[in-house]
Amino acid sequence: MQRILNIETLKQVGKKVKIGGWVNSRRDHGGIVFFDLRDRTGIIQVVCSEKLAEGIKDEYVLEIEGEVQERPIKMVNSDLETGVLELKAEKIKVLAESESLPFDLRDLNVSLPTLLDYRPLTLRNKKIQAIFKIQEQVISSFRKNMKELGFAEFESPMIVPSNAEGGAEVFHIDYYNRDAYLSQSPQLYKQILVGVFERVFTVARVFRAEPSVTTRHLSEYISLDAEMGFIESWEDVMDACENVIKDIFSDLEKNCSKELKFFDIGLPKIVKIPRIKMREAQEIIFQRTKRDNRKEPDLEPEDEKEISNWAKEKHGSELIFITHYPTKKRPFYTYPDPKDSDYTLSFDLLFRGLEIVTGGQRINEEKELVKNIKKWKNEPKNFKFYLQVFKYGLPPEGGFAIGLERVVKQILGLSNVREASLFPRDMERIDQRLSLAQPKKAKPKKKK
Amino acid sequence: MQRILNIETLKQVGKKVKIGGWVNSRRDHGGIVFFDLRDRTGIIQVVCSEKLAEGIKDEYVLEIEGEVQERPIKMVNSDLETGVLELKAEKIKVLAESESLPFDLRDLNVSLPTLLDYRPLTLRNKKIQAIFKIQEQVISSFRKNMKELGFAEFESPMIVPSNAEGGAEVFHIDYYNRDAYLSQSPQLYKQILVGVFERVFTVARVFRAEPSVTTRHLSEYISLDAEMGFIESWEDVMDACENVIKDIFSDLEKNCSKELKFFDIGLPKIVKIPRIKMREAQEIIFQRTKRDNRKEPDLEPEDEKEISNWAKEKHGSELIFITHYPTKKRPFYTYPDPKDSDYTLSFDLLFRGLEIVTGGQRINEEKELVKNIKKWKNEPKNFKFYLQVFKYGLPPEGGFAIGLERVVKQILGLSNVREASLFPRDMERIDQRLSLAQPKKAKPKKKK
Repeated sequence: MQRILNIETLKQVGKKVKIGGWVNSRRDHGGIVFFDLRDRTGIIQVVCSEKLAEGIKDEYVLEIEGEVQERPIKMVNSDLETGVLELKAEKIKVLAESESLPFDLRDLNVSLPTLLDYRPLTLRNKKIQAIFKIQEQVISSFRKNMKELGFAEFESPMIVPSNAEGGAEVFHIDYYNRDAYLSQSPQLYKQILVGVFERVFTVARVFRAEPSVTTRHLSEYISLDAEMGFIESWEDVMDACENVIKDIFSDLEKNCSKELKFFDIGLPKIVKIPRIKMREAQEIIFQRTKRDNRKEPDLEPEDEKEISNWAKEKHGSELIFITHYPTKKRPFYTYPDPKDSDYTLSFDLLFRGLEIVTGGQRINEEKELVKNIKKWKNEPKNFKFYLQVFKYGLPPEGGFAIGLERVVKQILGLSNVREASLFPRDMERIDQRLSLAQPKKAKPKKKK
Repeated sequence: MQRILNIETLKQVGKKVKIGGWVNSRRDHGGIVFFDLRDRTGIIQVVCSEKLAEGIKDEYVLEIEGEVQERPIKMVNSDLETGVLELKAEKIKVLAESESLPFDLRDLNVSLPTLLDYRPLTLRNKKIQAIFKIQEQVISSFRKNMKELGFAEFESPMIVPSNAEGGAEVFHIDYYNRDAYLSQSPQLYKQILVGVFERVFTVARVFRAEPSVTTRHLSEYISLDAEMGFIESWEDVMDACENVIKDIFSDLEKNCSKELKFFDIGLPKIVKIPRIKMREAQEIIFQRTKRDNRKEPDLEPEDEKEISNWAKEKHGSELIFITHYPTKKRPFYTYPDPKDSDYTLSFDLLFRGLEIVTGGQRINEEKELVKNIKKWKNEPKNFKFYLQVFKYGLPPEGGFAIGLERVVKQILGLSNVREASLFPRDMERIDQRLSLAQPKKAKPKKKK
C-alpha cells in the first residue's frame, strides 16, 4: 500500500489507508491510545489499543495502516484540517525512534541560544516552521515578479578576487595559496550582466564579517538583488523596488494566511510609500525629539525608528524611503546627484524602523568610476575585469538589494534577525556555539 | 516617450516609437547608414542618414526615436524576428560609448582563456548568451518540478563549521580567529530538513578546492540538490531523479528551441534509463575493451565514456544509472546494501559519458552513523548539531545532487565545463587569470 498524506485522508473516509509521520503527542485514555500524527500537510488523530502503541513516544516516526473514520466528536477549527476524522490504526510500524525531548515542542518557550542550539529539533514546531514557509514565499514572490518584468535570473559567484566594496567586514579565504574573499554583494556581477541581459536579478548569498553581535546583523545572509538598465531616472529604480515589495506583501496575504496567523503583528497596510531626503528626515527627527543628528552622515538605528514613526503618523505608511545619502557614506559606484555631488541618487527603504532595502543609480561611465575607485583608496587594476563593462557601453542603470531575513523579521515582529535565518552564522555561532565547539586561536591572525 | 522593446516594434508598424540597445553592427551604404540594434528581445534594423550616425560605432548604447516601417526587402528567418521591418531613425541619443572591440563579437572565434578574460564582453554574443538562458531554464525547470512534487525550497548555508565530508578539497576561511570552511555540499542540512519538511530541495553553491585543472571540474559550482523522506526503497530516489531529469529535457525542448539551435548536438531521446551495478558495468567494459578495471573501486572517466557508449548501442539511451558503488568510495552517510555491506545503495547518473548526478539512500540511524563517522576518521563531536536529527526520529530517506554546469555542458556538447559557468573559478582563475592578477605566495600555507 502506498503512503498517503494526512491531508489526503479527508477524501478517504471509510477506506483503508497508510499514512506516515511523527508522533506530535500521545495521550493514554483507559486502555485506548490517541496519537496526533504530524506530517508535512498537517496533523491527524490516530486511535489504537495500548498494545499496538507499546513503547511509542513523542517524535517517533511511524507508518500506520488503518481505516479513516469520522470522529465521534468533530474538532472543527482552522489549526487542524483533519479534525473531522481520525484513523483507526490496525498496523503500526516504527520507522525511527526518538529520545525524550529536552523541552515541550508543542508549546515552545526557550531562549534564543537554545532555539538555535537545537535548530534541527525546534524547526519541527509549527510556528517556527511558519517563519520559513513565509521566507520561501518571499523569495518565490520576488522571483515571480522579477521574471514578469523581464528580469533574467542569474547565479552570482561567491568567491571573489578582491575586497571590492571596501571596508574591513570581509572574510578571507585561503585560495590555492593565493588570496580570495567571500562576496559582500553581487553588485559588480549584476552590473556586468546589465551589459548583457539589461535586467537581471539574483537570490544571492552575501557575507559580512560583522565585528559585533546585534539583533540586525548576520555573517551570512540572503540578498534579493536586482539591477536594471535603460532607466530614465534613478526614481525608476525606486518605483521598481516599491512595486516588488508591495507584490511580496500581497502574495503573502494570498498564500500564507495560515502561517501569518501564528504571529500577532500582520502585514502592513499598502499605501504609497513616502520618499524624503536624509537631511529632511534628520530635520524632522530633530523637531520631534530635539536630538540633533542633523550633521551626521547617516541615520542611527534610533533615527530609523523615529522617522518610521513619523511616516506612520503622518502618511499612514509603515514603510518609508530615505533618499540622497551622502556620497562618502555610499560605495564608490553610487551615482552622485548632479545638483549636489556631496549627495547621491540613492535610497534606503525602512520598514517598521529597520532598513530592509538599499539601492540607487550607479555610475555608468568608466572615467568617473576610475576616479572614484581611487578616491575610495582602491586600485583600478583590481577592477580590470569589471571595468570592461563600462569600456564597451553600459546604459544608465541602477538596482537594489532586499535583505531577506530582515524583511521576514519585520513582517513577523521577531525580536532578532537570527530567528529568520534557518542556520544563522555570526561571530559566536556556526550551527553550534563556537565557544563550545572550538577554542579561539591563541594569536589572532593579522587581517590583510 | 517611453522606450519599447525591439520585439514590440512588430505591433507598431507606421507608428513613432523609442527604442534602445547596443549597436550590433554598422553598415555604411552610399550616404545611408544601417545599424543592427540589439536589445534583450532581439535585433532590429535601423536606417538613418550619415549625419545622424556620426561617430557611432559597434557596442555604443543608443536611444533612438523614429518610425517603424515595413522593409522594402523583407528578411524572414528565425534568427531575426523583426526582419520584416526597420526603424527609420529621426533622433539618436548616445547613452554610452564603446571602445573598439578586440575581436569580432558577431562571429566569435576565440580561445577559452580569451573567452573568459573578456567574459563581460563575450557574453554579449548571442550563442554564448544562449548557454545561460538554457542554464536558467534548467534551474527553473528543476525548481518547478520539485515544487509540484511537494518539495520545500530552502537556502543552505555556505559557511560550515567543519570539513564534514572529509577529503582535502576544502577551502578554509578565517572566521573571527576561528576555523571555518566553504560548504562542499548541502547534504547535512538537507537531511536536517527532511526531519522538518519531509521533502526539500535547494539550488546550492558548492565549493571544491580541486587541485588540478580538468575540463570537468570547477572550484565553485551550482548543485541542484534534493532530499526526500518516507521512501520505501532507495530506488524511489532514483525514480525521482529520472523524472526530474526527463522533465528538464522536455521543458528545454518546449521553452528553449531557439537557444538550442545554436548548438549542433540537441537534446537526448527520452527513453527508460538503464540501471546497472558498477561491477556489472566494469565487466561489460572489460568485455568490450579488454581493459581490465574490474577490481577498481570506481569508474575512470574513460570507463564512464565506454559504458555510456554501451548504453546508447544496447538501450538507445544517452543516459545510464550506475549503482552500488563500493562503500569505501562513498561518504560516511551512504546506506550500505543490506545484502552486501561492501557496497552501497547509491547511484551515479552518466550522460553522454560524464557523471551529472550522484545520489542514494542515507543512513537514518544514529548508531550506524556514529560508527561510520569514526570509521571515516572523523569525530562525532564535530557532528553534534547534525546528529540531533537522528536522535529525534528521521524516516528512511535519500536524495541526489545534479551538477548544473555539467548538465548544460553535456546538453550543448561544450568541450569544457567552464563554458557553462558565467564566472568560472578554478585554481588558475577568479574572473581574471590569477597569474596576471596577483603573485603566488612564497610559502604555501599548511593545510589544516
